[in-house]
Amino acid sequence: MSRSPALRPRNALYAQSGGVTAVINASAHGVIDACRRHRRHIGRLYAGRDGIVGVLTEDLIDVGREDPATIRALSATPSGAFGSARYKLRDLERDRAKYERLLEVFRAHDIGYFFYNGGNDSMDTALKLSQLGEQMGYPVTCIGVPKTVDNDLPVTDCCPGFGSVAKYVAVSTLEASLDVASMARTSTRVFILEVMGRHAGWIAAAGGLAARRAGDPPHLILFPEIPFERETFLARVRDTVQTQGYCVIVASEGTRDAEGRFLSDMGTRDAFGHVQLGGVAPALATMIKDSLGYKYHWALADYLQRAARHLASKVDVRQAYAVGRAAVELAVSGHNAVLPVIVRQSARPYRWAVGSAPLSAVANREKMVPRSYITADGFGITAACRRYLEPLIEGEIPPRYERGIPVYARLRGVRVRRRIKEPFVI
Amino acid sequence: MSRSPALRPRNALYAQSGGVTAVINASAHGVIDACRRHRRHIGRLYAGRDGIVGVLTEDLIDVGREDPATIRALSATPSGAFGSARYKLRDLERDRAKYERLLEVFRAHDIGYFFYNGGNDSMDTALKLSQLGEQMGYPVTCIGVPKTVDNDLPVTDCCPGFGSVAKYVAVSTLEASLDVASMARTSTRVFILEVMGRHAGWIAAAGGLAARRAGDPPHLILFPEIPFERETFLARVRDTVQTQGYCVIVASEGTRDAEGRFLSDMGTRDAFGHVQLGGVAPALATMIKDSLGYKYHWALADYLQRAARHLASKVDVRQAYAVGRAAVELAVSGHNAVLPVIVRQSARPYRWAVGSAPLSAVANREKMVPRSYITADGFGITAACRRYLEPLIEGEIPPRYERGIPVYARLRGVRVRRRIKEPFVI
Repeated sequence: MSRSPALRPRNALYAQSGGVTAVINASAHGVIDACRRHRRHIGRLYAGRDGIVGVLTEDLIDVGREDPATIRALSATPSGAFGSARYKLRDLERDRAKYERLLEVFRAHDIGYFFYNGGNDSMDTALKLSQLGEQMGYPVTCIGVPKTVDNDLPVTDCCPGFGSVAKYVAVSTLEASLDVASMARTSTRVFILEVMGRHAGWIAAAGGLAARRAGDPPHLILFPEIPFERETFLARVRDTVQTQGYCVIVASEGTRDAEGRFLSDMGTRDAFGHVQLGGVAPALATMIKDSLGYKYHWALADYLQRAARHLASKVDVRQAYAVGRAAVELAVSGHNAVLPVIVRQSARPYRWAVGSAPLSAVANREKMVPRSYITADGFGITAACRRYLEPLIEGEIPPRYERGIPVYARLRGVRVRRRIKEPFVI
Repeated sequence: MSRSPALRPRNALYAQSGGVTAVINASAHGVIDACRRHRRHIGRLYAGRDGIVGVLTEDLIDVGREDPATIRALSATPSGAFGSARYKLRDLERDRAKYERLLEVFRAHDIGYFFYNGGNDSMDTALKLSQLGEQMGYPVTCIGVPKTVDNDLPVTDCCPGFGSVAKYVAVSTLEASLDVASMARTSTRVFILEVMGRHAGWIAAAGGLAARRAGDPPHLILFPEIPFERETFLARVRDTVQTQGYCVIVASEGTRDAEGRFLSDMGTRDAFGHVQLGGVAPALATMIKDSLGYKYHWALADYLQRAARHLASKVDVRQAYAVGRAAVELAVSGHNAVLPVIVRQSARPYRWAVGSAPLSAVANREKMVPRSYITADGFGITAACRRYLEPLIEGEIPPRYERGIPVYARLRGVRVRRRIKEPFVI
């Protein structure tokens, strides 16, 4: 895994990938800061505009042309400031032309270091690139930078991006619960918050952090890991309304039944008979209304939850920055095909450090919420889960506000001069 | 309107009414503080548990039994800490028994001052109570405390509760827009945020504050005041995606066509054929998908927007507290059947003061967004609108956090001993 450092400085390329987060730009900030500290190894730093698509089309941003104040503001700016892409490269057999094009662009711009900021698909791409580069006589150091709101990467204790969405969901659940509690006597009895996480229930689990004491809302959490049973669910809603006066539910978008059918796919059609996607909350609300008759409200936070930099977790911002910086440190110290990971040293008090793992250990793998983190009835989180989650939402680090709204960085995005004649159509 | 102050201290009653807000408890805090300063006029302070329902059922909370630290924390706590109610009293002819019951409870607890914290319906109730009390030989000072997220009360320049939901919508629109912009090349092209305001478009208008420069998102705002035209709308969405690469839409839940039909009522049915309520955003999304084929996402913030004390406007919190306090000052200085209102003295720099108006001037009236605040094409806000709105979202005043989430006040809610034998079934 280790080889001697490059003898002359080579250029570096950074790209953002997949769904963005409130803190992925903090990782960019970490990468940029660290590249500047390693001039002996790293010359210029470029970024793919809209991620890997910008690399394929040789649409690169010259990061050195950005204002230093803009770069510093990246840590307080949500979403992908350089642009991201949902663009999965398949295996080498099927997408060989694309991998070769990437290496062609690397060669044209003397890219010796590639930092790929994404989830498990992206780690797989980075791994394949490092392998193919070696085979084709253009060795390039490929380092992953972990990012995903879903927290489903293995090996790392947690994943930058998750802590902030977890904090958003915990705070929103708390606030909406107070609202429903204060109105329930004459109005809404049931409130449902639908959250992200189609495969893993980590984000839904974070809703459980809204509760401080036994009996506090949320009263029910629906995880993708626990098969949904209509009758059990409805009985619990009825019991909760009868004893507490109201019922707050946090439902993962990935809630599914024992046959694996998503609740969101079962139900709603528009007036023309088209299936209406993305609605666990309305499906549950209709079920409750029809069977129990309670007045309901529901919310679907969608992008608001993963873009909410105004409510980011300080721990998450710090970790996002740290993995960006560590990626560069790993590269210049001669590592390849690895990614920095978060290592938990202690839960209370929370202490963490950055370690590293081979890309092959995380590529295309998912980490689900373990059964021991979910209460026996399947509707809540255990003390062990709370001990795991709580440090990740710790601390506030608000952006600067001007005239009532946050000031978020806007890049100039100056394009690097093209060196390849042939265009590439994606 | 003026009469000499009471000669002996009498008790006061406070009640919250209607949909709650992020700052209604700041008004409660203002009422409580001011009552304590006027011991010569005001003896004990009680609150209706769950608003007017608690008064009718003689379920009163003894505010004096609360911890002073809890009272101070009210200004940083969203929703109705004393409980609120959607419970409209109709006119004196139809609901005379209820008004008489209220006066019976007042008499039993020597209530000389009634502070009713609500919207235009509640101002009407307070007005009728003051009139009936006079007729029945039990004069009671009835003062309104304005509250509504909808900002639709006339006379007052703005309404406590609105500034915070406006800030939430502006910030959420900004954050989600950055998310969509960074993903649009390969993924979501259209994002729709559905916001509250069934009759007046003030909350939707606030989405426009996310834009700093011409062309910034949101690209389209849908107001209840502007009839929705499907073809014009779709043409604008297509143009925006073609020129900007993506399109962000803020849609009022009250969006309706020229015949007054709500978009949310037109469309979706579940698998059993039941109409699915509360979905302007999914109705628009389906329309866009079917006609233009763009990938979309949508969010429905629902209660999150009005409960988001973590993102409250400082101006709003200050004004909410001020009207609570002013209500008591008006009462002890001999006014009756009035409410404190916000008077704008200057827009830039923003200066405001508290004035007063008769309850009759606001009862059952609504203030819509004037046409001059909406751009000629009907899809944006004008400079005049921005000048009006911007000061209202100014400033941050975050709650205290502990272990990652805000610490919100929990009242003890000690019940006042009942004095009336006959129960009252609501």
